[in-house]
Amino acid sequence: MPDRRQLRLGAFMRPVTIHTAAWRYPGAYTDANFNFQHLKRFAQTLERGKFDAFFMADHQALLNMPIQALKRSGTVTSFEPLTLLPALAVVTERLGLIATASTTYNEPYHVARRFASLDHLSGGRAGWNLVTSGNPHEAMNFGRDEHVEHDARYARAREFFDVVTGLWDSWADDAFIRDVESGVYFDPAKLHTLNHKGEHFKVKGPLNIARPVQGWPVIVQAGASEAGRQIAAETAEAVFTGQTSIVEARKFYADVKGRMAKLGRSPDHMKILPGVFVVVGDTVEAAQAKKRKLDSLVHPDSGIASLSVALGSDVSGFDLDGPLPEIPESNASQSGRQRLVDMAARDNLTVRQLAQIVGGSYGALELIGTPASIADKMEEWFATHACDGFNVMFPYVPEGLDDFVDRVIPELQRRGLFRKEYEGRTLRENLGLPRPENRFFSS
Amino acid sequence: MPDRRQLRLGAFMRPVTIHTAAWRYPGAYTDANFNFQHLKRFAQTLERGKFDAFFMADHQALLNMPIQALKRSGTVTSFEPLTLLPALAVVTERLGLIATASTTYNEPYHVARRFASLDHLSGGRAGWNLVTSGNPHEAMNFGRDEHVEHDARYARAREFFDVVTGLWDSWADDAFIRDVESGVYFDPAKLHTLNHKGEHFKVKGPLNIARPVQGWPVIVQAGASEAGRQIAAETAEAVFTGQTSIVEARKFYADVKGRMAKLGRSPDHMKILPGVFVVVGDTVEAAQAKKRKLDSLVHPDSGIASLSVALGSDVSGFDLDGPLPEIPESNASQSGRQRLVDMAARDNLTVRQLAQIVGGSYGALELIGTPASIADKMEEWFATHACDGFNVMFPYVPEGLDDFVDRVIPELQRRGLFRKEYEGRTLRENLGLPRPENRFFSS
Repeated sequence: MPDRRQLRLGAFMRPVTIHTAAWRYPGAYTDANFNFQHLKRFAQTLERGKFDAFFMADHQALLNMPIQALKRSGTVTSFEPLTLLPALAVVTERLGLIATASTTYNEPYHVARRFASLDHLSGGRAGWNLVTSGNPHEAMNFGRDEHVEHDARYARAREFFDVVTGLWDSWADDAFIRDVESGVYFDPAKLHTLNHKGEHFKVKGPLNIARPVQGWPVIVQAGASEAGRQIAAETAEAVFTGQTSIVEARKFYADVKGRMAKLGRSPDHMKILPGVFVVVGDTVEAAQAKKRKLDSLVHPDSGIASLSVALGSDVSGFDLDGPLPEIPESNASQSGRQRLVDMAARDNLTVRQLAQIVGGSYGALELIGTPASIADKMEEWFATHACDGFNVMFPYVPEGLDDFVDRVIPELQRRGLFRKEYEGRTLRENLGLPRPENRFFSS
Repeated sequence: MPDRRQLRLGAFMRPVTIHTAAWRYPGAYTDANFNFQHLKRFAQTLERGKFDAFFMADHQALLNMPIQALKRSGTVTSFEPLTLLPALAVVTERLGLIATASTTYNEPYHVARRFASLDHLSGGRAGWNLVTSGNPHEAMNFGRDEHVEHDARYARAREFFDVVTGLWDSWADDAFIRDVESGVYFDPAKLHTLNHKGEHFKVKGPLNIARPVQGWPVIVQAGASEAGRQIAAETAEAVFTGQTSIVEARKFYADVKGRMAKLGRSPDHMKILPGVFVVVGDTVEAAQAKKRKLDSLVHPDSGIASLSVALGSDVSGFDLDGPLPEIPESNASQSGRQRLVDMAARDNLTVRQLAQIVGGSYGALELIGTPASIADKMEEWFATHACDGFNVMFPYVPEGLDDFVDRVIPELQRRGLFRKEYEGRTLRENLGLPRPENRFFSS
């Protein structure tokens, strides 16, 4: 079935699971987040399952929550993404390696170099999740008293992208001739000096590293606000989203792919991947029992704190058994907040109920059932253009990850929805994305 | 011989050799600098030789030289250090991994995180070579028109060190209790928020990663100016130096260790390691012939350019067959420049001769001979307190590296000067350095 559209699957590792109480689940590795031997095992299992990529989120500060919640978080210590992924590159062969790097508190020269280095080390498997940082605790680790405002962050991010991709194009793909006889290592005509001078950055270049194997590492984004959608349509090749309703997901899909078409980009050149939290059981009831067991391990302090983070507003003073009051504007992710406000209204949730949901899975789409029922839902979303695949969140590890790879993947393969072997060697090849032309040199 | 003082050996990888023409030497891998499979082989060979550490230099720009020289440089493209070393950590078990990271164009929070991450990934084998950036080409990649002045760079570096080590001490070593029963992951009493507010940095903390395995990664420095010696005496645990004369080396050794004693630090807690460029042959004549062969591969354009970089002054207009004229003050390394000026005067060198030397080995100490003659010289330096060991530069790879490991190391071991097995698991343990106390928590 070479022509049939195929599901794309990322694994949302943070670096492991997003669930606050996962480390307490029976059989879980309590130090999974911070033990390279475990992470190696997870990455190799994902590769056995033919996943497109291991995706690592990032925060440049402790999570912004009260200490009574923070002290219960198994993700409070973890590896830095661009140090972990080169190590995982050595123990895998085909799995894509996507790291989050903020454009708010970094310099484009550093970011361009590190992702180029990871791309070369991994033989073309790097991806850059381009984010902006709105967390005030991150600001305070970088000399600021206040976060940077939402729109200013996006303007900087857009220029940051131009500088990084310009630096990646510093060298033609065939610049390095290494002619021992004449002693010439590279052809100077194939080296370009960027000389970028913009509103936010002045960067001369060139980059001191060869053009990445993939031309550019795959560009990934997650913003869903107006500014986020626009920058995604202009630049992104994969987008992680957070819709929980198939109707909303189709609207988002059509909107962003429509924006791409207007910009002259092929809609096929972006893969839209909603996050999905998956719990697998022999029966739907057994899966639901696992989820209840997991949620019972969430301490109330954690749920309230997680909800406060997600809403960008302290909810600890709210009536836990009343409806969600009006939430003031804040600097948190605008689309994420609105999704929760809408969900609470739609499902008539109390603050406590909303907190339990958010403490568990941050309000992502949840698929709790058998391999067949989960595959049914994935197929429906995929076939009706609500998505191009999913960014899978495991409820606990190793069991939740093993369940997905050993039980759901074979079901997706049986239906012809998912690969049985990797199609290519690079992340781009496996995602079906074109290799970018070098803007300074034609190939 | 547990009480006998032992030589310490670092491998100066850049990431491979420092010699401009090394890639043209018969049998050399022309892409050694930029091929992970070769680097893996080199690191594993160093570990077989019981080397203390793989040391990776860094530049945040292309080398500052004219294009007619640059195009001949095999080091023009290479991995970024903190992406390469995590990958090497996976393929080695005991070898220390030291990366250069500049304090001039980085943020302390990022540097603290990445080295802590590398230290955890490698089981306590990380070292940080703390440098300042005086290269104007680096400045222009980070929004500046001009380099930062020497003294201002050192003032920033000193505060940078305080912030990074303060962040490493954010968590007590036993902060993570991971009590599944109560659901408490860490003890909040064992978390410290730095709240640093200084002249150059305002950093709140805490770091979002557990205290490094070694407490702190090993602190390495290379500055030899007045400011460089003082910051080394205050903070460094290993110092890379560039003396070529044993008399000068003893003076430097006595000076820096004397400064340490005045500050209340034990002189044993710093290892002084001059760079040494080693060419091994069956006879002294055979080794000299190898060196001549290598130097014959240096193009004149490269030699003049390398000398210009080292002196911080364009020498291309000088009379190549005359003596070195007066060199104006510049922003280049002051101690490095003075060393070359002194060498030219002492040995009555023409500009051309100095350029050939610098194009080859940057004017480091050269030991060209048999395993026995090389070991003799190393022993003399070591026994007379000119050094605590060496930072070895290989003339070409793989042959030069293999020669050292297979021929010189056994000779040093036979003399009881160098270990036959690693003493410990961490870089600190192998270097004989104490684990730093946590300034906020007593153990």
